[in-house]
Amino acid sequence: MKEISASQAYRLLEPGPIVLVTTSLEGTQNVMTMGFHMMIQHAPPLIGCVIGPWDFSHRTLKKTGECVIAIPGVDLAETVVDIGNCSGDTVDKFERFSLRTRPAKDVAAPLLVDCLANIECRVADPGLVDRYNLFILEAKRIWIDETRKERRAMHHSGDGSFTVDGGTLDLRKRMVKWRHLP
Amino acid sequence: MKEISASQAYRLLEPGPIVLVTTSLEGTQNVMTMGFHMMIQHAPPLIGCVIGPWDFSHRTLKKTGECVIAIPGVDLAETVVDIGNCSGDTVDKFERFSLRTRPAKDVAAPLLVDCLANIECRVADPGLVDRYNLFILEAKRIWIDETRKERRAMHHSGDGSFTVDGGTLDLRKRMVKWRHLP
Repeated sequence: MKEISASQAYRLLEPGPIVLVTTSLEGTQNVMTMGFHMMIQHAPPLIGCVIGPWDFSHRTLKKTGECVIAIPGVDLAETVVDIGNCSGDTVDKFERFSLRTRPAKDVAAPLLVDCLANIECRVADPGLVDRYNLFILEAKRIWIDETRKERRAMHHSGDGSFTVDGGTLDLRKRMVKWRHLP
Repeated sequence: MKEISASQAYRLLEPGPIVLVTTSLEGTQNVMTMGFHMMIQHAPPLIGCVIGPWDFSHRTLKKTGECVIAIPGVDLAETVVDIGNCSGDTVDKFERFSLRTRPAKDVAAPLLVDCLANIECRVADPGLVDRYNLFILEAKRIWIDETRKERRAMHHSGDGSFTVDGGTLDLRKRMVKWRHLP
């Protein structure tokens, strides 16, 4: 995996892909599927995400302040749904779904080797967790796998149906307003 | 346009499409392009979105507490970028881009006739605006156009390039955890 600047988080998350989130507490790792997330700010790169007390990862994220947001390709579609269907409270999902991991650099949560990209995150502001289950994260490092052939992300329509990335549309030359972005 | 329950907002926004936002203050309407948004809660349907003071709509949204989130199809791609390239401070974007509107039912902001869906929203919590330019909106009404042929939404990669909806993946039967959702 190749590292790119954490400032590029918006390139990965603004398109709104379904993501996986890993956490780790005292040697116990977990992974969950997450669809409620957004970019909040470019610099420093802040991400908002909803992880509720109904998610086993909620407590770990609160305690450790660390997670990894991984973006799966369409080749992991069934696994993404299955991960969302069970709880780390009762299942070692890494074992059940044969998820290959690699240590992250700045956080204890693991990287997911079979994803398109992994974003190491730290909680920047836990102040909205009680009211909205909304964690404000800061992206610290980004790792991308440029070698994999399947590069299509998925977008969750909220009910188990997904749209898969189709063609791309390059209107970069038309967009002048944000040319200053990193 | 056909009305569907506001509880269905997650079906439209969880996939993370680029959206347009309309506002209206004392007869002056505006429309902007927005990529930083998310679902925050299913019931009531809360949406988080970042609209900063650099956006002409920021002040209007603060004052009126109302907006419409419209989801454009790929047929509006160039217009979506062009709308983001100019400011309502100096341009009547509805006129410049020949945007067809229709009055909303509960808010003064107009619906965009040529979009896939329109969500009438009210600010539910302005408390995070000062810190993160983050408005918490509640979806009040949703209008969808079921008749249009072009139904592909776009996802902004943050730099003027987009991925367009491709195929769909129906894993609804596999997803058991959220079957209670409206």
